[in-house]
Amino acid sequence: MSKFSPLIQQLVDSLRILPGVGPKSAQRIALQLLERNRAGAMQLSRALAEAMEHVGQCARCRTFCETELCHICADSRRSDSPSLCVVASSADQLAIEQTGQYKGRYFVLQGQLSPLDGIGPAQLGLDKLQQQLSAGGVSEVILATNPTVEGDATAYYIAEQCKKYQVQVSRIAHGVPVGGELEYVDGTTLSHALSGRKLLL
Amino acid sequence: MSKFSPLIQQLVDSLRILPGVGPKSAQRIALQLLERNRAGAMQLSRALAEAMEHVGQCARCRTFCETELCHICADSRRSDSPSLCVVASSADQLAIEQTGQYKGRYFVLQGQLSPLDGIGPAQLGLDKLQQQLSAGGVSEVILATNPTVEGDATAYYIAEQCKKYQVQVSRIAHGVPVGGELEYVDGTTLSHALSGRKLLL
Ligand SMILES: [Zn+2]
Ligand SMILES: [Zn+2]
Repeated sequence: MSKFSPLIQQLVDSLRILPGVGPKSAQRIALQLLERNRAGAMQLSRALAEAMEHVGQCARCRTFCETELCHICADSRRSDSPSLCVVASSADQLAIEQTGQYKGRYFVLQGQLSPLDGIGPAQLGLDKLQQQLSAGGVSEVILATNPTVEGDATAYYIAEQCKKYQVQVSRIAHGVPVGGELEYVDGTTLSHALSGRKLLL
Repeated sequence: MSKFSPLIQQLVDSLRILPGVGPKSAQRIALQLLERNRAGAMQLSRALAEAMEHVGQCARCRTFCETELCHICADSRRSDSPSLCVVASSADQLAIEQTGQYKGRYFVLQGQLSPLDGIGPAQLGLDKLQQQLSAGGVSEVILATNPTVEGDATAYYIAEQCKKYQVQVSRIAHGVPVGGELEYVDGTTLSHALSGRKLLL
């Protein structure tokens, strides 16, 4: 079997779309599923199709969900909050939710400004964000975009957009990770940490 | 989003069947597919379903394929070979094929003897192997089962089975991997290597 049968080869090739799966591990996974877990693989097949076909974006915050509103926007304790946190992706939103600290609402950009890739304000739904700000009820915008060139540009763009409304705008702090050792932190993070230093006394 | 929407959560749970995918990476993969590669994920969904539904075993050698005979058994240059190599799995067969050295036919057990797990001679198709040996045409059986308790038991069982036929029976050599450093080789491998030592002079 220097080659697999066509259906196995097709499976091996398709598994390569998974992050971190190279040709060798795709072969291993394909044979392992055929050998030991056909029921699980069928279930994965259905779950993939259902999610890709039916998951869209929340009409209000743009996070991924299959309903008109996501469960946060549908929960008045959160959707009426005066705090709105702007994140680049549903994955980033998940990371913040998992801290358990933030109880406000979100706006999920599903990207960051990147003119070279054709990603401008419209692609990030910034018109929708503006509508929500002008509708009132938001008193604080927390920018949680990434500390990268695109994330910085996106944060500054949105901060500008907020100027005409009565809102406090902040950006989450970037610096040395808690528990991280200084010598292993990269230079960019360290310079962020330095310029973001806070007075203690 | 301390929880995902139901379809996303179902996808996250289903991704856990993949070897090496824990809860965190399942979340990351699900969101990444939704964000960047819905077409690829749909293709993977189809490939999984088609392979799981249609891939069976070769009627002659028991390797995975969706046709009556696999491409090796369908190729008379190989299927008429007097050499028959017995392997535990299609993955092991692939590993041997990839050496490019072996040009004979195979018999794929799809398992190894393990009475406690209810895997006996019948589950490994050993009746079919016996038929093939008694039909003649095989002069050499190469046992390439794993160097484990089950692999050893399986090899000895088949060697016994071969006794009544005019065939040479050998087992592939186990020892220190080529290029491997002795000090990093595990004890079992090293003792296999010692007991399998060969005279040089
Ligand atoms: Zn929402
Ligand atoms: Zn075959």
